[in-house]
Amino acid sequence: MSSTEDLDYPQIILQYSSGFLVSKVMFTACELGVFDLLLESGEPLSSDAIAVRLGTSTTGMERLLDACVGLKLLRVELTQEGALYRNTEISNIYLTKSSPKSQYHIMMYYSNTVYLCWHYLADAVREGRNQYERAFGISSKDPFGAMYRSEEEMLKFMAGQNSIWSICGRDVLAAFDLSPFSQIYDLGGGGGALAQECVSLYPNSTVTIYDLSEVVQMAKEQFVPPEEHRIAFHEGDFFNDSIPEAELYILSKILHDWDDDKCRQLLAKVYKACKPGGGVLLVESLLNEDKSGPLETQLYSMNMLVQTEGKERTATEYSKLLEAAGFGDVQVKRTGKLYDAVLGKK
Amino acid sequence: MSSTEDLDYPQIILQYSSGFLVSKVMFTACELGVFDLLLESGEPLSSDAIAVRLGTSTTGMERLLDACVGLKLLRVELTQEGALYRNTEISNIYLTKSSPKSQYHIMMYYSNTVYLCWHYLADAVREGRNQYERAFGISSKDPFGAMYRSEEEMLKFMAGQNSIWSICGRDVLAAFDLSPFSQIYDLGGGGGALAQECVSLYPNSTVTIYDLSEVVQMAKEQFVPPEEHRIAFHEGDFFNDSIPEAELYILSKILHDWDDDKCRQLLAKVYKACKPGGGVLLVESLLNEDKSGPLETQLYSMNMLVQTEGKERTATEYSKLLEAAGFGDVQVKRTGKLYDAVLGKK
Repeated sequence: MSSTEDLDYPQIILQYSSGFLVSKVMFTACELGVFDLLLESGEPLSSDAIAVRLGTSTTGMERLLDACVGLKLLRVELTQEGALYRNTEISNIYLTKSSPKSQYHIMMYYSNTVYLCWHYLADAVREGRNQYERAFGISSKDPFGAMYRSEEEMLKFMAGQNSIWSICGRDVLAAFDLSPFSQIYDLGGGGGALAQECVSLYPNSTVTIYDLSEVVQMAKEQFVPPEEHRIAFHEGDFFNDSIPEAELYILSKILHDWDDDKCRQLLAKVYKACKPGGGVLLVESLLNEDKSGPLETQLYSMNMLVQTEGKERTATEYSKLLEAAGFGDVQVKRTGKLYDAVLGKK
Repeated sequence: MSSTEDLDYPQIILQYSSGFLVSKVMFTACELGVFDLLLESGEPLSSDAIAVRLGTSTTGMERLLDACVGLKLLRVELTQEGALYRNTEISNIYLTKSSPKSQYHIMMYYSNTVYLCWHYLADAVREGRNQYERAFGISSKDPFGAMYRSEEEMLKFMAGQNSIWSICGRDVLAAFDLSPFSQIYDLGGGGGALAQECVSLYPNSTVTIYDLSEVVQMAKEQFVPPEEHRIAFHEGDFFNDSIPEAELYILSKILHDWDDDKCRQLLAKVYKACKPGGGVLLVESLLNEDKSGPLETQLYSMNMLVQTEGKERTATEYSKLLEAAGFGDVQVKRTGKLYDAVLGKK
């Protein structure tokens, strides 16, 4: 598309306008179980058959399926018996619940929680704070209190984070050679998918998931198999309770939830607990130094405004926070995917 | 991106997931007046200056501006006084309120009304009906009663439709030579932007906007200048009241609001009123015959589910509806933009 065409007809603006339609079509096909049914059935199905099996209207289902065809999430074949739909390969891998790389849970979190918070983006920008009160009628003073407002919400959030590590976990853990560190704490480790990637990638490591008591209970019940002896748990609030000694601390998507003061406070505490020769691994989505991108990270930084007290930062900003806490020899690795890695040493 | 990369890392799925973030960033920058301020100021401004002038938080505004840079809706320049932001050309033309091609009003309608209806897309697909009740607590029995539930909502809707015709109106009216028809009725002509395009493109034509009484009042007050003598008005409900005789009837984005029965009923009435040798021009977004796209039209058809009693249709489906009403010599012209044209003759 040349720039003259751009100006004569605003293709890009129309595309941005339809962004929420695209998101909701994909989320809804996931939520209703379209991709799961087509995976299980093993053969292409008609719109009517899918509607009956999933208990939906036929008029709604037919349009949903056709929009998924337009998004290349489904394929359609026009046969003598009518249109028959099947999954594309990418849908089988990422949009079915049972796949090891399933993104189903993060999509449900996006669709049912984040989408509604973002309805109040203009208010968030005006006020400079999160929008749980407008979206869900709950106090926004403690963002994690709001995010974990019910067992169901906590489970959705934890499962969602695990989805992300199923596609990004290996890259952030392989960004640096972490094999010298055998005793690792994953602060705010939640559902434990990153811890599991870690013990799988570094067979000599043990990882302790440090998180709020209710999160640890949920992780044990729902996510981390009891036979995984290289993963341990520690219940606590890392701002108010002590942090035990270890060789490496992972802070994965933690600092982005908090303002600079709280980050400094937490990193100082981590530095104090850390064994000499040990270190801290930050896993975050890094902004370019010149504010030009990446777009995903800029959007996530807005999401931090809408949902937390934090923001996304540049590599320089994270390095300064680490150095202010006492860490040195700071190294940065961009993975080319959503999340990057920053390592500081004591 | 090769298909192997696709399967290893679901770039397309991440992009679809972020679609609603992209929409809301653009809508919010419009709503807060960022593009208007940068157009008026005539010089690049800092994030802090913009926040002060627009009465928003600095932390929220900075991130909003940076995300707009990522979307190429703003440009940033890093100077000694810090980052300075300016509009891109496309933003000046399409995202400022004062521009003749402004899309501001349709974006406000999308952002504040359509976005919330779409939160309930899964329910819409399950139930096969619109979601005004869940989104706004109002009865969904009469979609236009719901859409026009307040003067403000009606104004937003009418202004939004006018935005669309400012970029697509000329193409749909020039798709066929309409100069033989001088006496034209625009049924459901709303805010009149298409009527204005029509009298400008066909100087010998007069166009009567036929719409509900309250819509006509609003069109006269807000949109159509009284000195435009080639545009007249007719107050009525085209399903329940009579339709006067004319040479050409325009039904622009009307049939897509209704099911096949109501379309047949309306077209039969139009055929009866139409002068011999006259015709009807349907302006709609046409689906491909093989259900493969266009994506925008598939998405709009889902929107018809969420907001109306209708759907988008293929050229063949519209031709059949026209022929069932008695119209012949049906011709179809795709414009390559959002809306296409179908002409039937009596």
